[in-house]
Amino acid sequence: MAAQASTDNNDHLVRSSDSQHPANLIPELCRKFWTLGWVTGTGGGTSIRDDDLVYLAPSGVQKELMKSEDIYVLSLAQQTDPKSRIYLRSPPSLKPSQCTPLFLAAFTKRGAGCCIHTHSQWAVLITLLLENSPQSQNKNLFEINNIEQIKGFGKGFQKQGALGYHDTLRIPVIENTPHEEDLTESLEEAMDKYPDTYAVLVRRHGVYVWGETVHKAKTQAESLDYLFQLAVEMKKLGLPWLSDIS
Amino acid sequence: MAAQASTDNNDHLVRSSDSQHPANLIPELCRKFWTLGWVTGTGGGTSIRDDDLVYLAPSGVQKELMKSEDIYVLSLAQQTDPKSRIYLRSPPSLKPSQCTPLFLAAFTKRGAGCCIHTHSQWAVLITLLLENSPQSQNKNLFEINNIEQIKGFGKGFQKQGALGYHDTLRIPVIENTPHEEDLTESLEEAMDKYPDTYAVLVRRHGVYVWGETVHKAKTQAESLDYLFQLAVEMKKLGLPWLSDIS
Amino acid sequence: MAAQASTDNNDHLVRSSDSQHPANLIPELCRKFWTLGWVTGTGGGTSIRDDDLVYLAPSGVQKELMKSEDIYVLSLAQQTDPKSRIYLRSPPSLKPSQCTPLFLAAFTKRGAGCCIHTHSQWAVLITLLLENSPQSQNKNLFEINNIEQIKGFGKGFQKQGALGYHDTLRIPVIENTPHEEDLTESLEEAMDKYPDTYAVLVRRHGVYVWGETVHKAKTQAESLDYLFQLAVEMKKLGLPWLSDIS
Amino acid sequence: MAAQASTDNNDHLVRSSDSQHPANLIPELCRKFWTLGWVTGTGGGTSIRDDDLVYLAPSGVQKELMKSEDIYVLSLAQQTDPKSRIYLRSPPSLKPSQCTPLFLAAFTKRGAGCCIHTHSQWAVLITLLLENSPQSQNKNLFEINNIEQIKGFGKGFQKQGALGYHDTLRIPVIENTPHEEDLTESLEEAMDKYPDTYAVLVRRHGVYVWGETVHKAKTQAESLDYLFQLAVEMKKLGLPWLSDIS
Repeated sequence: MAAQASTDNNDHLVRSSDSQHPANLIPELCRKFWTLGWVTGTGGGTSIRDDDLVYLAPSGVQKELMKSEDIYVLSLAQQTDPKSRIYLRSPPSLKPSQCTPLFLAAFTKRGAGCCIHTHSQWAVLITLLLENSPQSQNKNLFEINNIEQIKGFGKGFQKQGALGYHDTLRIPVIENTPHEEDLTESLEEAMDKYPDTYAVLVRRHGVYVWGETVHKAKTQAESLDYLFQLAVEMKKLGLPWLSDIS
Repeated sequence: MAAQASTDNNDHLVRSSDSQHPANLIPELCRKFWTLGWVTGTGGGTSIRDDDLVYLAPSGVQKELMKSEDIYVLSLAQQTDPKSRIYLRSPPSLKPSQCTPLFLAAFTKRGAGCCIHTHSQWAVLITLLLENSPQSQNKNLFEINNIEQIKGFGKGFQKQGALGYHDTLRIPVIENTPHEEDLTESLEEAMDKYPDTYAVLVRRHGVYVWGETVHKAKTQAESLDYLFQLAVEMKKLGLPWLSDIS
Repeated sequence: MAAQASTDNNDHLVRSSDSQHPANLIPELCRKFWTLGWVTGTGGGTSIRDDDLVYLAPSGVQKELMKSEDIYVLSLAQQTDPKSRIYLRSPPSLKPSQCTPLFLAAFTKRGAGCCIHTHSQWAVLITLLLENSPQSQNKNLFEINNIEQIKGFGKGFQKQGALGYHDTLRIPVIENTPHEEDLTESLEEAMDKYPDTYAVLVRRHGVYVWGETVHKAKTQAESLDYLFQLAVEMKKLGLPWLSDIS
Repeated sequence: MAAQASTDNNDHLVRSSDSQHPANLIPELCRKFWTLGWVTGTGGGTSIRDDDLVYLAPSGVQKELMKSEDIYVLSLAQQTDPKSRIYLRSPPSLKPSQCTPLFLAAFTKRGAGCCIHTHSQWAVLITLLLENSPQSQNKNLFEINNIEQIKGFGKGFQKQGALGYHDTLRIPVIENTPHEEDLTESLEEAMDKYPDTYAVLVRRHGVYVWGETVHKAKTQAESLDYLFQLAVEMKKLGLPWLSDIS
């Protein structure tokens, strides 16, 4: 029976005429991110959580061409074994994203509603500049202060309000691994060490950014990319990332 | 009564089928500014004045997604207390922009018809380059001359005609404050000190640009961003901003 | 009579359902050029010649918003006095472009079918780099060779075929003047001195590029902007514009 | 007879309502590549192979304006003489691309399903940086490792799977020639010397990238352009392309 078959794969989970439905929002966001150079060459990805349901872009698709029927869906509650995933809905002839456990970390450890992963060159260059910085500097932490756009970030996990202009934004950097899912442990460690961060840089790879809502995750991802680009240009012009203004 | 409720919030002030109506123009401009990187991460904003009525983009919205129903409206004549604002029309579940008193300064002190606030990275880099310039240089004034695009600026307040190619364009820089509305006093001081300027840079933050009309404000904002970008590239290439050609 | 009034201003000259009609093509091209940063802040412009008729973008309009009814039309044959222009069709409440005599120079001296004027920052930076180059170098000539994109240019006036990969592309630079129309004489001198050039750079201002057809003018304008951008990046990286490969 | 005439030129080969048909895909891809700066000034091109049939963009067209009726079609099996081409379908008043024998090399020697040729400035700058590198370095090979985007490439001809994060991506560089078709021999030599490469850089010219499918060719072209841009920025910031991480 066709109806049965359709139910089996739970296609109804990704079918909605509401433009704000996660299965419609993810392709729309990915189209926008492609124009920003964040998801070039099928890299990067985006996931949205709606209560217990998690919607995920698949692996290896051209992000500007993604459609709602390409979206995976899983239930957070059903993920008991960290090594295997149970999907409520899997698109035929696609593969789940290796980013999945990393998105889940933001959802389970931080209650995030959306997580965005970009390969933005500005993010990669920041991690390379830190890697090549003098011995005295912490190579695993990007710090910038006294830039208005920092106010685009929340104060932190379960805290009200946004960072202030004079606050120092700190984004931890973790080392890349050959298999993306193997980043999960060090991503979670970075979250534990910097409980208020909304982002983790991955050396020579890109960045993961999340937020309580799609709106907040996107605003923080844009603000962070702005700050990464600005910081790279500051480096070219000999301008320091930290200053004493107060 | 629905009609009553609708009248109370003056929704008719933002409803028009005319594409040139301020409530339609502001979202259209903001979409364009988003593609230029001026209003990334909900930063920046735009306001249009039509006689006594001022139309304002709200705080914290994704600027490329803004709709006419998101627009605030106030009457200039009714703003008697500088510390509090009375809105003729407030969108439900949004907050007024902290830029509001700064936009109002351009409208009341200069009779501007439109004011644009961007977080353009080129503007921020100019303020950083000035901050880090040698002691002998004025760190609070951007100056450039002998570039054709300078002709995109009017001569000044209540003056006819445009700047000439050999004229020096001077844009004052004010220091940023933790709360954007606290910029108002120093913005007004800069306007008093440079009565003919159509723009004020805010250190580590961005720029405010205005004009008698939407057309003029946009033309000046584009021309200024062009000059900021050019000036940053000139700095990278060792080219001076001021020259003696005449 | 309405029909009479319409005929008087020759509005039929700019009304066509053919997308390739000059009055439709100029706005379409200007929209594209705006996204390339060539006509920021109402700067730059485009003109197309169809036999004796010349179609011109007006002065001071937002180039990405231009409409066919904004277009001026004149007859080449009727322009007997170089100091005054007779227009067959003038849009109400707009002003003719100061670029007009420069466009006409390309049409009358070179038989061009289209002339494009940009304020591209790459063009401006090339003229600044030449101005600041060592004494031994010709500050009034941009030269580059051994780049494939050079093949985007024709060999020259009334010559068949395109430049080769090993050919040196030479673009003369003229000094800017306070009034754009005063560039006409030096533009014509540069055309006389470099009879095969399809472009003239204007110091601290931009570039004029033309071609036998709209297609050729646009191809040459794009190729030239590509080479200007490449040359600026080469300068940043310490790479010479001329090389001895053969 | 109209039907006869139509059959003669095989116009049916480029007429399809399927958006995934090569004659529809090539113009769509070229529009996208134009916005990326890959096919400026009619430069660059794209070809798709569907079994024995090869679809080719013509020479000298504005790539963002290309239409399906502009597409050439040939049969691989019928190409017996390397110096002459037999076309099943030729658009009237256009010329075949000089890139044709280079595209065919990817199809016949590697069984590629799509080949993309760009004039990307990042590709050109990489070849210039290598040309100007110290004597000790191989000027004919671009190498980069330990960047996540490298995983956007397949392991090589008739091999399963993708490159790993720690693998070194190697792209050979061949010298440019005055006539593009004369690149064929050295392109084939580079393919023989680097049998697993999916791309060949052409000095001072651009790059050829291919893949088993359109999807893979485009993903590899985007990933490569990303790496070229990143590598140029790394050079500006004094960061090495190769590192010892493992």
